[in-house]
Amino acid sequence: MDAETRAEILEATNRALCEHGYAGLTVQRIADEASVTSAAIHYHFDTKEELLNAFLDDLIGRFESELSCESADPRTRLNTVLDAVFSPKNPEADGFPVAVMELKAQAPYHELFRERFLDFDGVMREVVADIVRDGVAGGEFDETDPEKIARLITTMSNGAHARVVALDEYPAETRRIVEDALELHLGWTPGEGADG
Amino acid sequence: MDAETRAEILEATNRALCEHGYAGLTVQRIADEASVTSAAIHYHFDTKEELLNAFLDDLIGRFESELSCESADPRTRLNTVLDAVFSPKNPEADGFPVAVMELKAQAPYHELFRERFLDFDGVMREVVADIVRDGVAGGEFDETDPEKIARLITTMSNGAHARVVALDEYPAETRRIVEDALELHLGWTPGEGADG
Repeated sequence: MDAETRAEILEATNRALCEHGYAGLTVQRIADEASVTSAAIHYHFDTKEELLNAFLDDLIGRFESELSCESADPRTRLNTVLDAVFSPKNPEADGFPVAVMELKAQAPYHELFRERFLDFDGVMREVVADIVRDGVAGGEFDETDPEKIARLITTMSNGAHARVVALDEYPAETRRIVEDALELHLGWTPGEGADG
Repeated sequence: MDAETRAEILEATNRALCEHGYAGLTVQRIADEASVTSAAIHYHFDTKEELLNAFLDDLIGRFESELSCESADPRTRLNTVLDAVFSPKNPEADGFPVAVMELKAQAPYHELFRERFLDFDGVMREVVADIVRDGVAGGEFDETDPEKIARLITTMSNGAHARVVALDEYPAETRRIVEDALELHLGWTPGEGADG
């Protein structure tokens, strides 16, 4: 399958998940959304589970790249993480929280989905812990446990995600609370970077 | 319907949701779990949505009663909330997080479910904010914004819930992080009450 068709099928998976929910998701409906035949999808993905695993993998990969930035300043890097998590800019991503929430609810029944979420959680916590470690070493942040800060931000991100889906609440509400907590833990005002 | 039958049907709904997922949930499967006829269920609940709404209502009502305690000490009351949220004792409740996560994922498609989650969120935040307000007024806690603390605990609770389901992680992991943050915000060490 060429990369373009694959990307189109994964986009269509998101739309079909949002429109029909996991309960109503069929390969035929994804094929209809992607304007390909269901045989074409089955040719590349043996099962619906494999297709959804690829969908998650793709989504998580893109999100991971948003978490990282080139700056050497831990404050700028942490701001980048907060932006990616609590102020997503990509309007195309609007439906993703609903689709991902469906798959989180399916994790107890699908080991593949659970593995993807565990991978992603590990990466996100590592990115944040590295930033905090660097900031403590460089004196930008107060002395603190980097793993603990990583857990705080990651769990608040999980909470914000659930609130978007279940309550239709904008994640900026959660961002304010995270920023206040970070100020106390790190002695740093989020939003401030190298020039702050 | 007598209260016992109703309770049995709602218990059966939880088991059926956990076993089959929302995708595979049918009134017949709930009836099988409850050892009643599907006609008996349809007699009392017009639709599957109404049955699930009653299930949520029941579950939330029981959880709300766990959040409150008779003590006058805000520290004891806040410990009670932390216990109810992050250290649930009722082993019967083991399957509930999965069932509730399924329904959260359905909230964008079912206004009734969304309303239940919004109700519950409002109650939980109010309970916590009242406790913090009392504690600040009485000098047990440092000066802080009670609404902000309520949001912190509630959002961490949402995050812990998602982590139980998606990652199979015990909520005690989240409790440690919440307690550290509360210590900084309130100048109070969770676990300490009137005698602490």
